[in-house]
Amino acid sequence: MTLLIACSSRAEQFAAEIRAHDPQLDIRIAPDTGPLEAIRYALVWQPPAGLLAALPNLQLIVSVGAGVDALLDDPSTPVRPLVRFVDNDLTTRMAEYVVLNVLYHHRRMTEFRELQTRRTWTYLPEPAARDVRVGIMGLGVLGTAAATALRPFGYQLRAWTRTPKGLEGVTCFTGTHQLDPFLAETDIAVVLLPLTPQTRGLLNRSFLRKLSLRGRSPLLPGPVLINAGRGGLQVDADVLSALSAGELYAASLDVFESEPLPPPSPLWAHPRVVITPHNAAESAPAAIARYAVRQIKTHARGGKLENVVHRARGY
Amino acid sequence: MTLLIACSSRAEQFAAEIRAHDPQLDIRIAPDTGPLEAIRYALVWQPPAGLLAALPNLQLIVSVGAGVDALLDDPSTPVRPLVRFVDNDLTTRMAEYVVLNVLYHHRRMTEFRELQTRRTWTYLPEPAARDVRVGIMGLGVLGTAAATALRPFGYQLRAWTRTPKGLEGVTCFTGTHQLDPFLAETDIAVVLLPLTPQTRGLLNRSFLRKLSLRGRSPLLPGPVLINAGRGGLQVDADVLSALSAGELYAASLDVFESEPLPPPSPLWAHPRVVITPHNAAESAPAAIARYAVRQIKTHARGGKLENVVHRARGY
Repeated sequence: MTLLIACSSRAEQFAAEIRAHDPQLDIRIAPDTGPLEAIRYALVWQPPAGLLAALPNLQLIVSVGAGVDALLDDPSTPVRPLVRFVDNDLTTRMAEYVVLNVLYHHRRMTEFRELQTRRTWTYLPEPAARDVRVGIMGLGVLGTAAATALRPFGYQLRAWTRTPKGLEGVTCFTGTHQLDPFLAETDIAVVLLPLTPQTRGLLNRSFLRKLSLRGRSPLLPGPVLINAGRGGLQVDADVLSALSAGELYAASLDVFESEPLPPPSPLWAHPRVVITPHNAAESAPAAIARYAVRQIKTHARGGKLENVVHRARGY
Repeated sequence: MTLLIACSSRAEQFAAEIRAHDPQLDIRIAPDTGPLEAIRYALVWQPPAGLLAALPNLQLIVSVGAGVDALLDDPSTPVRPLVRFVDNDLTTRMAEYVVLNVLYHHRRMTEFRELQTRRTWTYLPEPAARDVRVGIMGLGVLGTAAATALRPFGYQLRAWTRTPKGLEGVTCFTGTHQLDPFLAETDIAVVLLPLTPQTRGLLNRSFLRKLSLRGRSPLLPGPVLINAGRGGLQVDADVLSALSAGELYAASLDVFESEPLPPPSPLWAHPRVVITPHNAAESAPAAIARYAVRQIKTHARGGKLENVVHRARGY
């Protein structure tokens, strides 16, 4: 059984971990593919265009990331079972990122950091968590983990989802027609949506204006956007103009329209924007290796794969 | 029944909230004390020296802060029942502060914030929470709340206490002789100790050096100090020199030897020091009012007061 690793970063690390987990797998690392017809499985992250289409006997694609939009957008991606990486390591890290950034803005840390640069000791009132409304967009594995991790702090939790879902302690809103009511009740929006034709560009100026209309907790200076979903969900320029217009109080962004975020982007220098380099849920290579080997073995014995991507739905 | 509010800040807010809770209390706000012999109760935060000693019929002192060292250090503080404010609001906020700052350093945010100022997109490896050892110093109401809030994230939890204590999922170390072993197993030290003659100046260079000896998680660049206890526990200059020497990786400090932290202090400008103005557990005036009224009523009917300070112990 031959596995091709076609990843734009960390390919050697994945190979080493997979070898440790399953020494019998024959591993190739792109671009050293060896004979293309030997390859049955592919572990991919931003693979070169056309590479997957050139594998005549490919049976399964495992995506290192939970977001598979780029693979689906590439018309050369062959129609084979595609599973995306979702496991405890990824969900744990995403929950950490969300709790960290919700607490950061709830506790007004962008302002305290600004005050620190000015050597200024100033009391700022902070609302109680029970008075802060956190709205999670997307209630899949990651959104559910985020809600579960936030719950003990006592925030008022809401969620917005494409299809009706329920989660204990979370008020759920569904579909396009309930987006405006959801935004009207949200102080801190946590975006964990997949990127699909329906969600692309959703976080634009109109969205942010709706968030600002009533989305103010008495003691929070204004609404907050936390995007750890996909860069294509947001319009970078609109986030900036909403911040400048005072419609948005602050933002934590892990993803951007173009990654790496180009050095000239004004987002880098905005005092109320917290930038991380798409690492909110950067999983350990060992976890990815374990997962990939498990999917390959499941496929080989004709078992039920995990987290299979539904192509029409887009995730 | 007359209550004197002698608080260096927020006195009017406390008065308004207390009136809302108990309209029958006769409230005075220092320095407008009225006849001193009428005053039975005092709600205090940094009261003027000698004021409490001048109240001949004082029966109960309620401290707005959980830390009462300044009151005990003042020889003019009369020997009356002294209760310190501890309630859900305070413990919830402290747990928020601790989780926020542990996650901040675990997820290497001081470095990401530095990278942001340089418009630099760089992947930094972050350890899994299960590989990070968080050592909580002090396991009273606040330390217990912090440990409970940290537990779901999967950190390895340790605690160091004056007297033997136990808490599920927490490895406990007790007394002076177990301080060194505790520090040798700690990556992130969270200090929630009271300030007593025994703890004053505990966080000095020798302490920080011991923390650095083996207190390194493979992927964390070095040990972290989080002090939300009392400023007198730490030697500000030693925290700085330990940072400069590379013994300490980063620090979150809510308290300082002198408060407000004076503008010339080099702590303000250190890129890996996160400063907040003693607001880690700044409680809402309504919560303080509710608590004070409850203690006064309990005292009036001869009931058992909450959180009575043991003067010899110091908290």
